Amino acid sequence: MSILTDPDTAVETPQHRLARAKEASRSIARLTSGEKERALEAIARTIEENASRIISANATDIARGRENGIGEALIDRLSLDEKRVAALASAVRDVAALPDPIGQVLGGHRMPNGVALEQVRVPFGVVGAIYEARPNVTVDIAALALRAGNAVVLRGGSAALDSNTVLVELMRSALKGAGVDPEAVQSVDDFGRDGAKAMMHGRGFIDVLVPRGSAALIETVVTESTVPVIETGAGVVHIVLDESAPAEWARDIVVNAKVQRPSVCNAVETVLVLREAAPTLVPVVVGALQDQGVSVHGDDTVAGLVSDVIPATEEDWSTEYLSLDVSMKVVDTLDDALAHIRRYSTGHTESIITTDSRNAERFLAEVDSAVVMANASTRFTDGAEFGFGAEVGISTQKLHTRGPMGVSELTSTKWLARGTGQTRG
Amino acid sequence: MSILTDPDTAVETPQHRLARAKEASRSIARLTSGEKERALEAIARTIEENASRIISANATDIARGRENGIGEALIDRLSLDEKRVAALASAVRDVAALPDPIGQVLGGHRMPNGVALEQVRVPFGVVGAIYEARPNVTVDIAALALRAGNAVVLRGGSAALDSNTVLVELMRSALKGAGVDPEAVQSVDDFGRDGAKAMMHGRGFIDVLVPRGSAALIETVVTESTVPVIETGAGVVHIVLDESAPAEWARDIVVNAKVQRPSVCNAVETVLVLREAAPTLVPVVVGALQDQGVSVHGDDTVAGLVSDVIPATEEDWSTEYLSLDVSMKVVDTLDDALAHIRRYSTGHTESIITTDSRNAERFLAEVDSAVVMANASTRFTDGAEFGFGAEVGISTQKLHTRGPMGVSELTSTKWLARGTGQTRG
Repeated sequence: MSILTDPDTAVETPQHRLARAKEASRSIARLTSGEKERALEAIARTIEENASRIISANATDIARGRENGIGEALIDRLSLDEKRVAALASAVRDVAALPDPIGQVLGGHRMPNGVALEQVRVPFGVVGAIYEARPNVTVDIAALALRAGNAVVLRGGSAALDSNTVLVELMRSALKGAGVDPEAVQSVDDFGRDGAKAMMHGRGFIDVLVPRGSAALIETVVTESTVPVIETGAGVVHIVLDESAPAEWARDIVVNAKVQRPSVCNAVETVLVLREAAPTLVPVVVGALQDQGVSVHGDDTVAGLVSDVIPATEEDWSTEYLSLDVSMKVVDTLDDALAHIRRYSTGHTESIITTDSRNAERFLAEVDSAVVMANASTRFTDGAEFGFGAEVGISTQKLHTRGPMGVSELTSTKWLARGTGQTRG
Repeated sequence: MSILTDPDTAVETPQHRLARAKEASRSIARLTSGEKERALEAIARTIEENASRIISANATDIARGRENGIGEALIDRLSLDEKRVAALASAVRDVAALPDPIGQVLGGHRMPNGVALEQVRVPFGVVGAIYEARPNVTVDIAALALRAGNAVVLRGGSAALDSNTVLVELMRSALKGAGVDPEAVQSVDDFGRDGAKAMMHGRGFIDVLVPRGSAALIETVVTESTVPVIETGAGVVHIVLDESAPAEWARDIVVNAKVQRPSVCNAVETVLVLREAAPTLVPVVVGALQDQGVSVHGDDTVAGLVSDVIPATEEDWSTEYLSLDVSMKVVDTLDDALAHIRRYSTGHTESIITTDSRNAERFLAEVDSAVVMANASTRFTDGAEFGFGAEVGISTQKLHTRGPMGVSELTSTKWLARGTGQTRG
């Protein structure tokens, strides 16, 4: 493209990378399923063969992180060892094994005048992702985008700069080796904030932009972008326990949803207990949570039933703790529980524990969240658990897709019309 | 909602209307298909019974328009007579007759642990529309939104203020008569620009916002909104004529695509002719266009083949004339035609006229537009022609939906998960 060779613009800008991704997206869109599988296999193999280089770059990130005092939880999310590098490669192979959505015919019919209409699945073109910390996201999103025939522009967190730089370089060299245009994978990490800015305003170059990370990051991307965005993530997740909830299910599901991995968006933050069930269930559930080191922020009723409860404030009901904290409230009726969820939920995931099918079906029908469950842990809201291989993120908006986003969610559609000279009367 | 009765906020704001639409969306989402059909029939009947009131309000708009010198084309688009009012009601009945998309199960499977997953179609919640001039859009969009179980917030053009005010009032009173919450239909027209601003920034209240109108209006909504937007409309539409194109098809389709209704987005703006076909096709097609009063803006080759051609400038190739003007260019190869389209198309609709199946299939595969045609008039890109009853607009973005938007395009999905106590390992 002339923009890239024009001597007046010889200094490379983030826009050049966007333009190269756009240009590359044309050839990526036309790859066969087999060609895409081979390209992804080349990426997996290259990652495995360069494990030590990746780990060494990651060590630089870790050292810088410790200098900056970023805290052990973040250090852990950031760290790559041999096992985690092997998991990166394995995720790419999982994605390669997924069915190719491109070319799928979604429907069609003949118009009364004989024109044959067909709606087919096509790649988006260029997928952008702005994300934080974990370097596996770099590989996951690139693999998913490529599987769906897209080019990808990545902007990772500065904490993982060295790891991401090596991963992108390896993916590009793997593509080249597989005869695929390496410009299909771009990073704008080296441009800092300007890179993110160029993506958010890259109309005509970025077909969809996915922010993945903190609530603040997502808010910035959603409010600043002029390109279409899929909002992901924040999860003030609720579990409701009704009178018919078996104590074992209530205990096991609440503990699992809070403790198994407290730092992620599908972890439960608020438990609502129907008043009639409170005397039986609150002691069992709170006891099990406290045994696991969870701090319970409870209302007065909860505090009257068990000890060591931190008094819940209004702020607790809208807090995504992402830690070993949970809020708990006793409500009079299912209506009250639904009203509480309507008011405080971020529309990510809610679950009810009940054996009363009327309550279960009402909850499933009326709760307006991406994933609504009965008798299952909210931790199941996850691309891998849903069978999508990996995930780009979890959409909490209603446009385009809702819930875990896999390969199919990185596609668009187009209409084909085949006529024999028809005109409109 | 307390916001509406709080004495401190007794002055009504656009936000109050958004909040009332949001509140109403809950009951609208739960209406059965039959209840929605009866509500729409009540709207159709109320419109018919109040035709004279609508026409009289419209006369005020027309008079104001003439005073402001808005031009006869716009006056025509704005005008409602008995026939057009009858057409409004009839469009509502067409929408009522469409199948209800809500509750449709789109797919599902059991997770290995036995949790049953199901993806179902649900309403968006609150659909917002910002549009111009034609008052029929007020009724079309409200009907489509209601059919899909949504509440709707409307912001029409100031030119149609009186007509729109009466239409919204009639729809609300029809809903009330049918036992449906009238707050499901809101207008913020009386707030002027503040109404549009509130919608564009109505996060948590507006689930999707559709701009429909001029390129400037769409640009403003896309760049200013923090709520999810579906970009519609602008159409620099191309028709390609190759060596195998039958002269009759070429002539009839180009003339139809340009002349049948030049002011709309699916009208052709640029005709690309393969060099080998130019000597035969250019005179036939240009002659037929000029017979219909069309001004042809042609390149040198076109000008050498026929008379009365206006020399085309670079600007012509990216101009959406929306008038009896068309640009025409001779290109050496299909590759050149595809490159021209890539550069200048707005991704709305393109058509190739050919009997060579290789060219047709290549064009259908490689052109990246919402609707890609072979041997049919671009005027067919239309919700009614596609069998959608009416249309909200034509999406030219890739997120969520592409091409004409009908009832199904005003829905989202959610995942339901039914378990028996499962936790994540």
